[in-house]
Amino acid sequence: MATIKVHGSPISTATMRVTATLYEKELEFEFVSINMRNGEHKKEPFISINPFGQVPAFEDGDLKLFESRAITQYIDHEYADKGTKLTSSDSKKMAIMSVWSEVESLHYDKVASILVWELGIKTLFGIPLDSKVVEENEAKLDSILDVYEKRLSESKYMGGECFTLVDLHHLPSLHYLMKSQSKKLFESRPYVNAWVDDITARPAWSKVLAMIPN
Amino acid sequence: MATIKVHGSPISTATMRVTATLYEKELEFEFVSINMRNGEHKKEPFISINPFGQVPAFEDGDLKLFESRAITQYIDHEYADKGTKLTSSDSKKMAIMSVWSEVESLHYDKVASILVWELGIKTLFGIPLDSKVVEENEAKLDSILDVYEKRLSESKYMGGECFTLVDLHHLPSLHYLMKSQSKKLFESRPYVNAWVDDITARPAWSKVLAMIPN
Repeated sequence: MATIKVHGSPISTATMRVTATLYEKELEFEFVSINMRNGEHKKEPFISINPFGQVPAFEDGDLKLFESRAITQYIDHEYADKGTKLTSSDSKKMAIMSVWSEVESLHYDKVASILVWELGIKTLFGIPLDSKVVEENEAKLDSILDVYEKRLSESKYMGGECFTLVDLHHLPSLHYLMKSQSKKLFESRPYVNAWVDDITARPAWSKVLAMIPN
Repeated sequence: MATIKVHGSPISTATMRVTATLYEKELEFEFVSINMRNGEHKKEPFISINPFGQVPAFEDGDLKLFESRAITQYIDHEYADKGTKLTSSDSKKMAIMSVWSEVESLHYDKVASILVWELGIKTLFGIPLDSKVVEENEAKLDSILDVYEKRLSESKYMGGECFTLVDLHHLPSLHYLMKSQSKKLFESRPYVNAWVDDITARPAWSKVLAMIPN
């Protein structure tokens, strides 16, 4: 097997999506730490893999990829026989999974990533938060989680009856938001709350958290 | 074969992504027009298919889907033996295609959809445009199209050597932007310009345009 390399930062949510997938698939990989404070992700050699200058970038032998959700899909497909199966092979089940995958990316994460920045990363770096931005995005997240509560009352996981990439893609932002004031939005909804408890307890996820420096 | 139904509006870019795919696959479908001016997309029965109240919604027999890119993927996969093949079955080629599919969704369309609204839909409805928003988003599009120009100098299409869903997903916003002041951003780049000419000339695309009322 060719060497898998992940170029990223252990505190970046997009990087965590990829490492979580690699741990779920029980694959070995080399982690190449990118110093984002020095802007390494905006310079060569990093931008020769990702021209948009965002972590992570990914290598598997000659194959070079970027965009975290494209990378996680590739890993699950290419290493189908390893570790946890994270997608369905049935066409209709896969279609339902794709719908909720798009919901995570285009609805949930659009809002969650702003709250992670305001309530997670800014706090970590001692930057004052913008309370108007927090309020607006918590209101949006509240509406989105109404849809999640209904979905999870009908389906054990967001993508279907089994844990899949759809659930996994939420883990990094949950890590930050469940330590912030926004956790009330998750905890106040019984199905969402049970789902958060379930997916954050996965052994592969604890390995991702162990990579974060103290 | 079960009846395929598309619930949407012929002027909605997301709806056009789905009808373009159906025409490429040479599939028959029923078009259920949703009156967005009356807010039909925010009410039952529409929101029972898409709880986010956005067109299009899609039915294939018992299967109900939303999110245009999930629908196009499903159509290409489920009807693999019909019309144009719009994805690759090779794992590495599919991974590269997924990268650029994410780029379309998370980089290009994030900006293009704002410009479509300002320069396309607002003009259509006689609403004054916000020139500051246009300027900011044209600057962002300019940077994104630098990446596209490099990509298209190395690969005939955005997803690889053949026309795929990645290219198709750009068509609806190109329809509006190539009739607006933003067209200069495409026309000034030789590879991007040739790609736009190529993909907008597809017979399936002209069928989508024929659905737009005069």
